[in-house]
Amino acid sequence: MKPGLLPGVEAHLEVVVDDSMVARFDTLGLVHPVYSTWSVVKHMEECSRKLVLPYLEPHEDAVGYAVEVVHLAPTPVGMRVHVRATVEAVEDRRVRCRLEVSNARGKVAEGVHVQVVVPRDWWLERLRQGP
Amino acid sequence: MKPGLLPGVEAHLEVVVDDSMVARFDTLGLVHPVYSTWSVVKHMEECSRKLVLPYLEPHEDAVGYAVEVVHLAPTPVGMRVHVRATVEAVEDRRVRCRLEVSNARGKVAEGVHVQVVVPRDWWLERLRQGP
Repeated sequence: MKPGLLPGVEAHLEVVVDDSMVARFDTLGLVHPVYSTWSVVKHMEECSRKLVLPYLEPHEDAVGYAVEVVHLAPTPVGMRVHVRATVEAVEDRRVRCRLEVSNARGKVAEGVHVQVVVPRDWWLERLRQGP
Repeated sequence: MKPGLLPGVEAHLEVVVDDSMVARFDTLGLVHPVYSTWSVVKHMEECSRKLVLPYLEPHEDAVGYAVEVVHLAPTPVGMRVHVRATVEAVEDRRVRCRLEVSNARGKVAEGVHVQVVVPRDWWLERLRQGP
């Protein structure tokens, strides 16, 4: 990792909630016509990765490992959400970010996302291994 | 809630990983060509909801509240995953399920998902509230 990935470093992401992000499941159909928890997680992952990318060496990659989220309030389709990732700790190869998602009404979700920085060759080899 | 939603009750879901489930983000493109963490979360949510639905009264709905997941191993496109949700605790209106996702090689992910059982009218009203 390059120097500078320290507690307090932030990244941001803006997303307008669209129909592809609502709580709809293949076997259950449309559940709630609002921003789904899995979409919140997707945008948390995206924002955390955006944060880490500038600090990776060419031989490194970052792999999502763990996520915790509490979804506090619904967001309708068409509303903008703001995602903020803030580095909380970097221990060994683990980058732990605190995440907050908000819309015009206030906080939508909060959580923690952990990425592990790995050697790119090791990771590509892991992906290539067949079942 | 109808009686019977007790610790140990299980639901299952089978999914074949396809291209729509890989780690790809709008602002970053394709990150890893394998089953994404947000898709793991989506299927955990789907399986937990499937578990709870038979126990809801007509005037009730279940809303996802919190999720924790650790993603342990990659799953390539085309491989089948099995999701199992098991009730761990039902406290007041909160249904806490333990989730495990596995493929032919072994465990892929594990976590916890919490749903809250709410009065359907209250929830619909909450969704109707504009920004």
